[in-house]
Amino acid sequence: MKADKRLSNIRALLVQEGIDGLLLNSEANVSYAAGFDAPDAYGFVSGKSVSIITDFRYVEDFKRFAKSPVHILQYEKSLFDTAARLILEHKTKKIGFEARHLTFAECEVLNKLLGKKASFIPLQQTIEHLREIKDAQEIAHICQGIRIAQKTLAFAKAKVKPGRSEMAVAADIERFARLNGAHAVAFETIVASGPNSSYPHARPTDRILKEGDAVVVDMGVEVNGYKSDLTRTFFLGKIKPVVLKAAKVVRKAQELAIRGIKPGIPICSIDEIARHYIAQQGFGKNFGHALGHGVGLEVHESPSINKKNTRKLEPGMVFTIEPGIYLPGRFGIRMEEMVLVTQEGVEVLSGNNRD
Amino acid sequence: MKADKRLSNIRALLVQEGIDGLLLNSEANVSYAAGFDAPDAYGFVSGKSVSIITDFRYVEDFKRFAKSPVHILQYEKSLFDTAARLILEHKTKKIGFEARHLTFAECEVLNKLLGKKASFIPLQQTIEHLREIKDAQEIAHICQGIRIAQKTLAFAKAKVKPGRSEMAVAADIERFARLNGAHAVAFETIVASGPNSSYPHARPTDRILKEGDAVVVDMGVEVNGYKSDLTRTFFLGKIKPVVLKAAKVVRKAQELAIRGIKPGIPICSIDEIARHYIAQQGFGKNFGHALGHGVGLEVHESPSINKKNTRKLEPGMVFTIEPGIYLPGRFGIRMEEMVLVTQEGVEVLSGNNRD
Repeated sequence: MKADKRLSNIRALLVQEGIDGLLLNSEANVSYAAGFDAPDAYGFVSGKSVSIITDFRYVEDFKRFAKSPVHILQYEKSLFDTAARLILEHKTKKIGFEARHLTFAECEVLNKLLGKKASFIPLQQTIEHLREIKDAQEIAHICQGIRIAQKTLAFAKAKVKPGRSEMAVAADIERFARLNGAHAVAFETIVASGPNSSYPHARPTDRILKEGDAVVVDMGVEVNGYKSDLTRTFFLGKIKPVVLKAAKVVRKAQELAIRGIKPGIPICSIDEIARHYIAQQGFGKNFGHALGHGVGLEVHESPSINKKNTRKLEPGMVFTIEPGIYLPGRFGIRMEEMVLVTQEGVEVLSGNNRD
Repeated sequence: MKADKRLSNIRALLVQEGIDGLLLNSEANVSYAAGFDAPDAYGFVSGKSVSIITDFRYVEDFKRFAKSPVHILQYEKSLFDTAARLILEHKTKKIGFEARHLTFAECEVLNKLLGKKASFIPLQQTIEHLREIKDAQEIAHICQGIRIAQKTLAFAKAKVKPGRSEMAVAADIERFARLNGAHAVAFETIVASGPNSSYPHARPTDRILKEGDAVVVDMGVEVNGYKSDLTRTFFLGKIKPVVLKAAKVVRKAQELAIRGIKPGIPICSIDEIARHYIAQQGFGKNFGHALGHGVGLEVHESPSINKKNTRKLEPGMVFTIEPGIYLPGRFGIRMEEMVLVTQEGVEVLSGNNRD
């Protein structure tokens, strides 16, 4: 999406919220408004332009990427002074800000600087919903990351062998991903084996993989600021029947959920399909997390695919479908694919080359 | 430091601030109060105990590490409900919170839940200053990380060769660190070559290293939640005289600054020693960042070693000394060591095995 198209989408948001300016401080929202990856920066959007405020470390870099109507400003004294000056220059009176990202202290400073010259309106969401719908370029970036993650997971399969530590496998995986085009890893790679696999967010340890282990590998990469996120569970040698059953249930729950995806369906009902099936198979207490989450500039972003989200699926949404079954202290299974909601239904972006 | 010793330090802070409870939400502060690495958690400290509130993902893990007077609580409905219940149970009336970390939205929720039953006091700093002074165990963790980082940089020296890409070198470095005992990398490794080295926070690119390059490698690892942070600048082949001069100036500025460190000296004067020398040598405009920063549970923490910090050095402080000279678009040099302020003066923790 061109920067001006994004600005026009944000402009509609300003009208909807009854504000004439929007102050952004979360990295993903600033990056979205900027049109490029913009860490350690603030964004100020008026009806006419997008201003990105940063410091000397990034200013040269940002100027290389910025295209009209995006302007780059370097702050000298403080970020807030520059933000306040911009707000006054644009004659904006009602400025929305990110209530879930701006800290109490930052609010205080802005209120102090602007006093009665402007009022600040806390918004629970700003452009998160705009970001849910990916355009062709964003999908291309995401798919590029997915291809690298898939290639890396195929490599991981060969590295997950008895005698190696979780940490060594994670180190090999992250190196491979970067040597194969990842600009960075999207998050610390999870390699969780045996009992460790029963903790959904385990960090790699010194534990040595052994026969009979289930090994959860959850990883993703970043390409042009866009993330990917995939999980495979590998099995070493002879698997216990309960593990085998859990794995079959997880795979089937995933298939059923994916089959249910199409525009107009409430998001909670997709979570419900997987959750209901898992419960039916006797593992109801063993699936504690949401079924999935949006992926884009953030590895976890809107929409959350959970049982409470009553909003509807729309074409262009990209998210994970990752059911899991965890028996604390015993084992865990998780399988995670990334899907795109299309006009007709769904495309499994990580669909080719599955394990 | 034992958990009860930390609690007694925090108790002194409560008295000093005139509060009877402290709500913590920044990861490092929560971890410090907990006595172990505690991501995605809140802490509530009263005069008598430390409560760590987290969700099902971490609760088992935390319970393995928690020692009295630290208690682990799993929240069900929401983190805030549990925090509010704790605050009421402890009969705390004046609760300090982290103004620089609690978001506007979080403040709103807490105020709504507790209404007139408690008042919330914004604090710019809570336990950051306590964290500045490291005890023997913390120093041991940090030194363990420094040893791994040094070993990794020695390995990096052999990998920084013409024909390899920045990204490939970074991938090799991070893998080596993890295979050699790092629990994680402390931050994304910087490998910035040739003109890229002139950007202090460059991310690794596809650029192929070549003869004549200065190559800045800035990396650190995490061990038991504690970080390390070291930088070396390597040179490939024949170096231009201006680069050689800048390198000598940076090294000398670093030596002079380190030599000036002892308890009681204002922090700004250490920054001034390096900055003055660099300016004297004609590179005054080419050193834009602070001289250093504290390192501990965070890779950047208090004290900041900058020209404005008038506080005094105290035994137990651990920080970096990292002067740099950057000629935009041409080259950059940075050298970073980690030091400990001792009773007598200073110990360069990264002092043995220097390149």
